[in-house]
Amino acid sequence: MSNSNKLKILNDPIYGFVTIPNSLIYDIVQHPYFQRLRRISQMGMSFLVFPGAHHTRFHHAIGCMHLMQKAVYSLRFKGVQISESEENALYIAILLHDIGHGPFSHAMEHSIVEGVHHEQLSLRFMHELNETFNGQLDLAIQVFKGEYPRQFMIQLISSQLDIDRLDYLKRDSFYSGVAEGNINSERIIQMLNVVDDVLVVEEKGIYSVEHFLVSRRLMYWQAYFHKTSLVAELILTKVFNRAKELAQKGQLVPCTKPLQYFLNRTLTQETFSKEDLFQFSLLDDSDIIAAIKTWMFEPDYVLSALSKMIINRDLLKIKMLTDKVSKEKVDELRQKLIQQTDITAEQAKYLVFSGKIKNQAYNLEDGPIYISDKKNQIKDVIMVSDQLNLKALTKPVTKYYLCFPKSLLEN
Amino acid sequence: MSNSNKLKILNDPIYGFVTIPNSLIYDIVQHPYFQRLRRISQMGMSFLVFPGAHHTRFHHAIGCMHLMQKAVYSLRFKGVQISESEENALYIAILLHDIGHGPFSHAMEHSIVEGVHHEQLSLRFMHELNETFNGQLDLAIQVFKGEYPRQFMIQLISSQLDIDRLDYLKRDSFYSGVAEGNINSERIIQMLNVVDDVLVVEEKGIYSVEHFLVSRRLMYWQAYFHKTSLVAELILTKVFNRAKELAQKGQLVPCTKPLQYFLNRTLTQETFSKEDLFQFSLLDDSDIIAAIKTWMFEPDYVLSALSKMIINRDLLKIKMLTDKVSKEKVDELRQKLIQQTDITAEQAKYLVFSGKIKNQAYNLEDGPIYISDKKNQIKDVIMVSDQLNLKALTKPVTKYYLCFPKSLLEN
Amino acid sequence: MSNSNKLKILNDPIYGFVTIPNSLIYDIVQHPYFQRLRRISQMGMSFLVFPGAHHTRFHHAIGCMHLMQKAVYSLRFKGVQISESEENALYIAILLHDIGHGPFSHAMEHSIVEGVHHEQLSLRFMHELNETFNGQLDLAIQVFKGEYPRQFMIQLISSQLDIDRLDYLKRDSFYSGVAEGNINSERIIQMLNVVDDVLVVEEKGIYSVEHFLVSRRLMYWQAYFHKTSLVAELILTKVFNRAKELAQKGQLVPCTKPLQYFLNRTLTQETFSKEDLFQFSLLDDSDIIAAIKTWMFEPDYVLSALSKMIINRDLLKIKMLTDKVSKEKVDELRQKLIQQTDITAEQAKYLVFSGKIKNQAYNLEDGPIYISDKKNQIKDVIMVSDQLNLKALTKPVTKYYLCFPKSLLEN
Amino acid sequence: MSNSNKLKILNDPIYGFVTIPNSLIYDIVQHPYFQRLRRISQMGMSFLVFPGAHHTRFHHAIGCMHLMQKAVYSLRFKGVQISESEENALYIAILLHDIGHGPFSHAMEHSIVEGVHHEQLSLRFMHELNETFNGQLDLAIQVFKGEYPRQFMIQLISSQLDIDRLDYLKRDSFYSGVAEGNINSERIIQMLNVVDDVLVVEEKGIYSVEHFLVSRRLMYWQAYFHKTSLVAELILTKVFNRAKELAQKGQLVPCTKPLQYFLNRTLTQETFSKEDLFQFSLLDDSDIIAAIKTWMFEPDYVLSALSKMIINRDLLKIKMLTDKVSKEKVDELRQKLIQQTDITAEQAKYLVFSGKIKNQAYNLEDGPIYISDKKNQIKDVIMVSDQLNLKALTKPVTKYYLCFPKSLLEN
Repeated sequence: MSNSNKLKILNDPIYGFVTIPNSLIYDIVQHPYFQRLRRISQMGMSFLVFPGAHHTRFHHAIGCMHLMQKAVYSLRFKGVQISESEENALYIAILLHDIGHGPFSHAMEHSIVEGVHHEQLSLRFMHELNETFNGQLDLAIQVFKGEYPRQFMIQLISSQLDIDRLDYLKRDSFYSGVAEGNINSERIIQMLNVVDDVLVVEEKGIYSVEHFLVSRRLMYWQAYFHKTSLVAELILTKVFNRAKELAQKGQLVPCTKPLQYFLNRTLTQETFSKEDLFQFSLLDDSDIIAAIKTWMFEPDYVLSALSKMIINRDLLKIKMLTDKVSKEKVDELRQKLIQQTDITAEQAKYLVFSGKIKNQAYNLEDGPIYISDKKNQIKDVIMVSDQLNLKALTKPVTKYYLCFPKSLLEN
Repeated sequence: MSNSNKLKILNDPIYGFVTIPNSLIYDIVQHPYFQRLRRISQMGMSFLVFPGAHHTRFHHAIGCMHLMQKAVYSLRFKGVQISESEENALYIAILLHDIGHGPFSHAMEHSIVEGVHHEQLSLRFMHELNETFNGQLDLAIQVFKGEYPRQFMIQLISSQLDIDRLDYLKRDSFYSGVAEGNINSERIIQMLNVVDDVLVVEEKGIYSVEHFLVSRRLMYWQAYFHKTSLVAELILTKVFNRAKELAQKGQLVPCTKPLQYFLNRTLTQETFSKEDLFQFSLLDDSDIIAAIKTWMFEPDYVLSALSKMIINRDLLKIKMLTDKVSKEKVDELRQKLIQQTDITAEQAKYLVFSGKIKNQAYNLEDGPIYISDKKNQIKDVIMVSDQLNLKALTKPVTKYYLCFPKSLLEN
Repeated sequence: MSNSNKLKILNDPIYGFVTIPNSLIYDIVQHPYFQRLRRISQMGMSFLVFPGAHHTRFHHAIGCMHLMQKAVYSLRFKGVQISESEENALYIAILLHDIGHGPFSHAMEHSIVEGVHHEQLSLRFMHELNETFNGQLDLAIQVFKGEYPRQFMIQLISSQLDIDRLDYLKRDSFYSGVAEGNINSERIIQMLNVVDDVLVVEEKGIYSVEHFLVSRRLMYWQAYFHKTSLVAELILTKVFNRAKELAQKGQLVPCTKPLQYFLNRTLTQETFSKEDLFQFSLLDDSDIIAAIKTWMFEPDYVLSALSKMIINRDLLKIKMLTDKVSKEKVDELRQKLIQQTDITAEQAKYLVFSGKIKNQAYNLEDGPIYISDKKNQIKDVIMVSDQLNLKALTKPVTKYYLCFPKSLLEN
Repeated sequence: MSNSNKLKILNDPIYGFVTIPNSLIYDIVQHPYFQRLRRISQMGMSFLVFPGAHHTRFHHAIGCMHLMQKAVYSLRFKGVQISESEENALYIAILLHDIGHGPFSHAMEHSIVEGVHHEQLSLRFMHELNETFNGQLDLAIQVFKGEYPRQFMIQLISSQLDIDRLDYLKRDSFYSGVAEGNINSERIIQMLNVVDDVLVVEEKGIYSVEHFLVSRRLMYWQAYFHKTSLVAELILTKVFNRAKELAQKGQLVPCTKPLQYFLNRTLTQETFSKEDLFQFSLLDDSDIIAAIKTWMFEPDYVLSALSKMIINRDLLKIKMLTDKVSKEKVDELRQKLIQQTDITAEQAKYLVFSGKIKNQAYNLEDGPIYISDKKNQIKDVIMVSDQLNLKALTKPVTKYYLCFPKSLLEN
């Protein structure tokens, strides 16, 4: 089959048409590992709040590749030398940067695949694909691991202003309808440049950078940490904690085979095997949803109660607080619940719990976003004079939550 | 709980904010039967072509209710009397008009729930809900069944220019990125009126009606009948035909319980029981996807081969033709396949097959779309003088397809 | 000044960013002849109906150049050879195709510059610019005149599916808010190809072509020929007919110098001089608006009455009719007006008048839009089998209008 | 004519359809004073940078009225009592809040109508209209003047989060294509409430408020104060300063009558007469553009040179600086120019000049934007705990500019 037959164009409601630039990338996209991303939604349980938010990690990865094409074009226009193999490495690295995400990744990372980070999994997948494609992913892997000598390429893949963020904020805003997250990715990319191997934004783009940081923070508090999404995700974590607990006690918890595989095991980064990876590649949102639908009818009270909450969108009550919830407060509520119903103290832990979430719009300890002036001098964006309020964005914000059954409210 | 606590606003990327008008409707939306629509995608397998097309029947139903609110507002503004209970009936009827759809409805209607039409199922669900809500859905059911005396209300729910179409064309266009389907629903609704109990579009809206019909036809051929969506849906039907065949022969076909329930049964409209309905209410896209992922590893060749095709997006070859495919041609291809591989004639039927699709932009035999002139005289839109080309839209277009494994091409 | 300093990027709300591809084109854009297009609105008096429709011929020309860049890119991708000088010729020809338009061109072409067609003027401007730029526009002029040997290039500039239409429909739809005109220009351009030197649309684009033709017709009847825009434009023509009549009788009609210049002259294509062209280049919308504002206070009744109508948006009554208005009907109304007021028969002609407008969505006598099938055979789009309704679009539609003062209604 | 015949719907590309709510408002919109706003662009000279920015003050005023309708609807939904006459007062006040703007208002306020503030003029127009409409604008005038007892109504018309800003940011962003200014007006309006007669935003809207303030600041620096718009506006001011200087010396400066009227006079707020107001009502963008086109050919060097700059978009060089430009630096450049050409010192002042611009995203001395918590306690938005960076937005930012002919660069 000739190369040109594989050149494909995809419709994207956001960018219009997206072009797959060459045959190797087409083959990567067609690989079952990548196709699996079609079945993993990008925003987890957020669809319970934003009914349009069903877009997938597949679509996001394709969108990233499109923006990376724009970035390469823009940088070359400004005289930055990027070889064809470096270009390809950028496309492949961004396409695969999230391939290690499992379904509802936050919930799963705290339950069934606890102990293995999604970036590690992405890397494992890349190595597998690199074998399949005879080493053609070598450069991409170097870039992804941050080991390639050209710093700006690494920053395009992973930094506080990377292509990943430029796509997901715009995409999540589009599909959720939270209009404020609609950042001007195209403009920011137009203003990227490279100075002394560092990725920079030209001076006149400073307001767009600030707008980007503020929009991102807004998306965190208004969408990603929306209290309904949050409580749904917490319940989901609890469901799988419970299922794993039961499974490891030897109780039968009906579900698909790959899910069973992970319920029965305790993984660690070190011992994570090829078979583990293969089984992981078979998991997607459908296993999770199908399982909790089944578990609504299981005898274990906690498992069925929490499962019903998600399926029927009849969630625990969640309170957002500015101060940490005391252990006493939580215990008190658990006691109350135990008295109200006939559950055990151990069960009550699944139904009354607290915790915290944290967001920092701009992190001083990560690599900075650099601004270049007309003389090509570069500065951390927060040091550029009139932008006092950017400094304020570095302050981490922590909020606390307390979740419990609605029945506790009514007494 | 007071009424006002239940008033909710939803984000819709298309319409901005959608308001749930009252407490009864809020309760219907919260019911598990309706929440299930969150897990059923609107465009079936189309996401394999249009990666953004993951919107759900839930979102569409909510969008319909929103447009119905606009329609009621617009008609009242023109002096059409609509009582509060009629208004509510319209909202409920449109909200529930598609509640009987199963996952991937076309594929399922030709396999596991063969013999029971989705409109019948919608009606069954409505009756169940009517019991739950103490008869408050009586009027809505009358309207849905076409038995309410006011004709225009029935036309708003189901006709060649109903609210359903005004939402789904716009929504499918938005999420798929096929920009041409972006009809001007708001304008058409602004131009609706009622003359002698008939729903009409005011004369000056005739070009918008034509634009709507042409856009709809385009969506059919470019999106709904896109050859890749089509072949995927046909394969899906075959997978479930096969699974049902095996199940009914007594072979174990691993899947979730509700799916098992339907694989083991042959349904008819007449015998469809309360339990059947309950089991149906537990089915959604996740059961289907989880099942075919599992079936990739089943020993039955047909079942596993077809399942892999869908999961890995490595589909049968499909050819679109203007003429019917002869039985001889199909047989010849099946023979070739049998020689090439070691499958049986019976298996070959699942891998080589033909059929037809048909679309008619405007159907002369259904109720017409009426245009009213300034004297409130009404005419079928195709009779309005200079619109010769509307007449042409009444011609049904039939296309034929032939599907077979790619291996047959290469010999 | 180096070339690269001139490379510019413009914001376009429709396409995002538009790039000016080289220094020559930048210099053409900066030329006063081209800058003048910033002061000439694209949709004439339509802003009286669509308050957002104030976009200019400048913006449209820039948008055309952008789409032409996309077309060149798409055609080259498919293997069509286009040299760099041909590419430039295409950009320049499309940029300048409308440069001969005066303010409110339809009204002016029937009054002050009567006798000289805007395409002739465009050509004259191109020749002037060609002198300024030392012959660098030679090729562009050849293409514009239809004399270049490569047919498809001429079709890109002027045909029933040219770049001009692909921009103006989308742009006019965007700024007016008539959503139905929002054609999918990007998709049509993606599907362009060249077969035997003929510009074609690939088969699968046939529905997009139909959608384009239907949208265009809709824009004609709903926007360009909207009865309020139409009557305003007709009144404007009458104002200038009247002003010219008075001026040529020797009466002083206060206005700017270049406008005075044309009021005092009768032009012909043959005698149109270099000075005429220079004076024409000084005219824009502001001369017209400033003049009619002044004329509201002139003693001539017709001049002041018609001027006030436009400025205060208090227009003549217009009736749209399917049949030609008889001379008798018009005379009768004029008599009535004369009796009602104290104007003369000659004045009445300016206040009561009739005429016709005509639109043909697809013209059989112009060069056809060709569709190519997979074997690269090409056919006129209306001959492609299932598209009966395209045939219908070839029927010219004529409508008649009758305009008169509102006072005639009330008696 | 009956009331209902006057109910009109306007197309707005941003909001879809805008409804004129009643006959009185229809008549105000139809009044020549209001129609004049169709001929005054909203963003002054910005179209030289953003070619789509030709939207008018008419369109903005209509858009404001639409948002006010949404605000009234939203507040009433939350139980805020607003009588029908108060509602009308809000619509009229917002519709007319900018009616006193002249063409290119900033440039004119520093030249031909120096000494009379546009808000004073708005008020004068309102009083005139109030006479015409027999006192029906009494309440609206009270609200506009800030004298109505209900504080929140005054805040809707004029405050740091008023309806004016909610429309113009969104509109200017839309037409200019500066996507970052696309604030979520609809969401902010949904979250408005009234607590103790104070307009507040509900707590959960705090990130939208921050986004609004950051977007507004961005629009200032990226659009309104874009250096090309700025220098064009400064040149325009100089043109009119010069024209006025010449006129008052008795030299003939050809232009339209109303413009002549103002060139010949020095106005003061106190002596501003009815006739002054009438003449002002005849001025719009066309007088300004027509005049400077004429002045390109006037003998006065300064007048013609500056006029050509604007018409041909061949502007002075502008440098933006963080520090004040010293008088010495300016004098030095003027000397250099005098040596280079044969102009006088007095003329040089028009061609070399400096100044400053200032913007403050949030002004502590104006009335604050209040946030209400769940207990209906209200706080200044910058006092709400985790929003440190809002505090930073209160810092005024001043930038300095220096303008001079390009020829001075080249030596």
